[in-house]
Amino acid sequence: MASKPSIPKGTRDFSPIEVAKRQYIIQIIKSNFEKFGFQPIETPSFENSDTLMGKYGEEGDRLIFKILNSGDYLSKADAAYLENKDSAKLTSSISEKALRYDLTVPFARYVVQHQNEIEFPFKRYQIQPVWRADRPQKGRFREFFQCDADVVGSKSLWQEVELVQLYDTVFTDLGLIGATIKINNRKILSGIAEVIGASDKLIDFTVALDKLDKIGEDGVKKEMIEKGIAAEAIVKVQPLFNFIGTISEKIDKLSDLLSSSVEGLKGVEELRFICDNVMKLGLNSAILDLDVTLARGLNYYTGAIFEVAPPKSVAMGSIGGGGRYDDLTGIFGLKDMSGVGISFGLDRIYLVIEELNLFPETVTETTKALFINYGDDEAFYALQAIQRLRAAGIKVELYPDNAKVAKQFQHADKRRIPFAVIIGKQELESNTYSLKNLSTGEQISVDFEKLKVTLL
Amino acid sequence: MASKPSIPKGTRDFSPIEVAKRQYIIQIIKSNFEKFGFQPIETPSFENSDTLMGKYGEEGDRLIFKILNSGDYLSKADAAYLENKDSAKLTSSISEKALRYDLTVPFARYVVQHQNEIEFPFKRYQIQPVWRADRPQKGRFREFFQCDADVVGSKSLWQEVELVQLYDTVFTDLGLIGATIKINNRKILSGIAEVIGASDKLIDFTVALDKLDKIGEDGVKKEMIEKGIAAEAIVKVQPLFNFIGTISEKIDKLSDLLSSSVEGLKGVEELRFICDNVMKLGLNSAILDLDVTLARGLNYYTGAIFEVAPPKSVAMGSIGGGGRYDDLTGIFGLKDMSGVGISFGLDRIYLVIEELNLFPETVTETTKALFINYGDDEAFYALQAIQRLRAAGIKVELYPDNAKVAKQFQHADKRRIPFAVIIGKQELESNTYSLKNLSTGEQISVDFEKLKVTLL
Repeated sequence: MASKPSIPKGTRDFSPIEVAKRQYIIQIIKSNFEKFGFQPIETPSFENSDTLMGKYGEEGDRLIFKILNSGDYLSKADAAYLENKDSAKLTSSISEKALRYDLTVPFARYVVQHQNEIEFPFKRYQIQPVWRADRPQKGRFREFFQCDADVVGSKSLWQEVELVQLYDTVFTDLGLIGATIKINNRKILSGIAEVIGASDKLIDFTVALDKLDKIGEDGVKKEMIEKGIAAEAIVKVQPLFNFIGTISEKIDKLSDLLSSSVEGLKGVEELRFICDNVMKLGLNSAILDLDVTLARGLNYYTGAIFEVAPPKSVAMGSIGGGGRYDDLTGIFGLKDMSGVGISFGLDRIYLVIEELNLFPETVTETTKALFINYGDDEAFYALQAIQRLRAAGIKVELYPDNAKVAKQFQHADKRRIPFAVIIGKQELESNTYSLKNLSTGEQISVDFEKLKVTLL
Repeated sequence: MASKPSIPKGTRDFSPIEVAKRQYIIQIIKSNFEKFGFQPIETPSFENSDTLMGKYGEEGDRLIFKILNSGDYLSKADAAYLENKDSAKLTSSISEKALRYDLTVPFARYVVQHQNEIEFPFKRYQIQPVWRADRPQKGRFREFFQCDADVVGSKSLWQEVELVQLYDTVFTDLGLIGATIKINNRKILSGIAEVIGASDKLIDFTVALDKLDKIGEDGVKKEMIEKGIAAEAIVKVQPLFNFIGTISEKIDKLSDLLSSSVEGLKGVEELRFICDNVMKLGLNSAILDLDVTLARGLNYYTGAIFEVAPPKSVAMGSIGGGGRYDDLTGIFGLKDMSGVGISFGLDRIYLVIEELNLFPETVTETTKALFINYGDDEAFYALQAIQRLRAAGIKVELYPDNAKVAKQFQHADKRRIPFAVIIGKQELESNTYSLKNLSTGEQISVDFEKLKVTLL
């Protein structure tokens, strides 16, 4: 095969600089997860198909990557489906495994499978790749990392409080000042549905309301009526069309608005508890915002819903999201296990940090000094020093070949290595090193201790 | 689905403790890779099938996990193969992608694809999972991590010297004292083949010689003759049957033995350079050993061959291996790109460290203190302290529910959290904390500063 090789569409190679930048973000997320008491688990890249299929809707099932059975897989294939060339139906008889589609379903499977070893409430984090056979586009890949933190086994709202703080500390540590943590509650959405007199119209309602900025109050109302929402119902929730003010003011408005809905009021109280405590404890750099149009994962969440928008100076979709789901593990037969969690969108966070130029220069720092190779005697002398420098934790390298000196310096330059160490006859005899600062050009003669201190 | 869920055979869930221990090993490997100047890359989990197929032999092709095409994959399937139920031949028409089988072929593909962006010599490391549809057994999994460091673009033997040092520093840092780094050279094996007069008998020869310990000199010779190796040939390499002594003595013996083979003598000189320099520079805790029976990847390596055995007190196969391959990227059309690299066997290293009880206790340390939850006022007061402690980098948690105190202490106990912080009316009023050491039972009243210092 002599044609230039490539990789599957929607996948990526990561160069050393990209890996370093990704690791920088992951490390900050990870260390905050751990400070907040979350513990890491890892699950296999592929699961049994029946663990995944049917958990993400029809669209999800289609987007799951299936792994072909090994060996003579057609011997067990369904003859009728094979004859009719029915791909969809044949799949389950020639494929038993599938690549992880998200981290939530494998986590639910993990909790149920290991329930006897787990001490609840269980705070777990998981940072692993997932795969989706989606149409690739800008910022959407077929292989990407998810970074999830969830608590399972407690209904305490203090966890929602802490999860908001967790978002805040991660984004603060990343230098992403001014991220907006939007919060809503599924019960409030249910309450609105009650008030407008139609649960099945709720999605239409929130979708329309979300366009307020763009099409104005009249436009929104027009759309709602087109979708079959009664005019009287719209009157009842009129305050939502001018839903501004502080969070407390918004909560008070909701309380009035939903006074006839028991569930709605429960949602108001939950929101009040979470927002009050978050605000009294204070955030470092993020902004908390109550957004009643926030409806992500409507069928999934049962309490709080979170979504994080990047600082306003960057045009980018949400960089995180999450919420409370009261029956995480029910799909695997373990009832009454409430969970709440948040997720960080690594790829988008990367793009935001890149755009705002927030990666510290040190992130891509690698080798501190390149020892120029002048021949075997000098190389041996160099390696004696290199060995001791590495033992002190300093990243140093010997250019492997006795190549032209200009080429070796060029190598240091292209690799952005800040120092070169030059060893000639004179240095060998005097047991010294010539240390050259490659940005200033300054060169000094040093003994080993001085060399070490300078490179440390 | 109410049956207890499971995972595919040969795959594993990793619990928090297991993840922590694996991360401990990976972190030591990674930091040494970086100290030695290696830079990380990452490649996609799946590659185009034609990148992988045909690179690992027939057996390898069979063990590669193939991914079923998305959508109506049968519409493009070869009708004849479908009719004949020819699984092997049908595969390429219903599957275009396959899971990574190792890190070497993807690395070769990466180098060729990105050759214009790469500054050579290129020292890359890669720590990622690979997948093989092998029959699972003790210590052999269908998903496992490889940890590879390779240099591509230089033939300098100083790299072999440094790779031996890299093994030594990693195993020293892991506390694995007395690992044996076995070295051989493909050219020496070729030389032996020349001397015994049959290149095709070389594998039979080394396999037989490797049994010297078990079946003795006569047994080995008998097997060699059975395999068709001439008696006169065996006489010529008689010294190999008593191949003891220091490395220098062994090298001298090889030099005599292979005096008629140009390639063999080249191998001797390479070995001498590497071993001399490694020994003069000195190893921290590993033992270098010249093993002429070492023949791993015979068809692949062209120069040095490495394999690492764990300390003798542990019965376990090799925990690392590698070597020099003169044409890494030729399969993708880029000629004359010499490479040399080593790999660490994460799973086996884990088992060895576990068996020798070498994991530091700190590895599985997580949360330092659990704040007992006595109700919302106390919880709020606790979170004020928790927030400040986390900002100082200390891992602390609030028990989320106002549950029975005994249950909360039990939670701390099961999680092996060393301290509990108790906040009652008195502490609230006096702005203090009761800090209880859960192993000694000792309880003291402290202010915030003392709390922080104690938990730091």
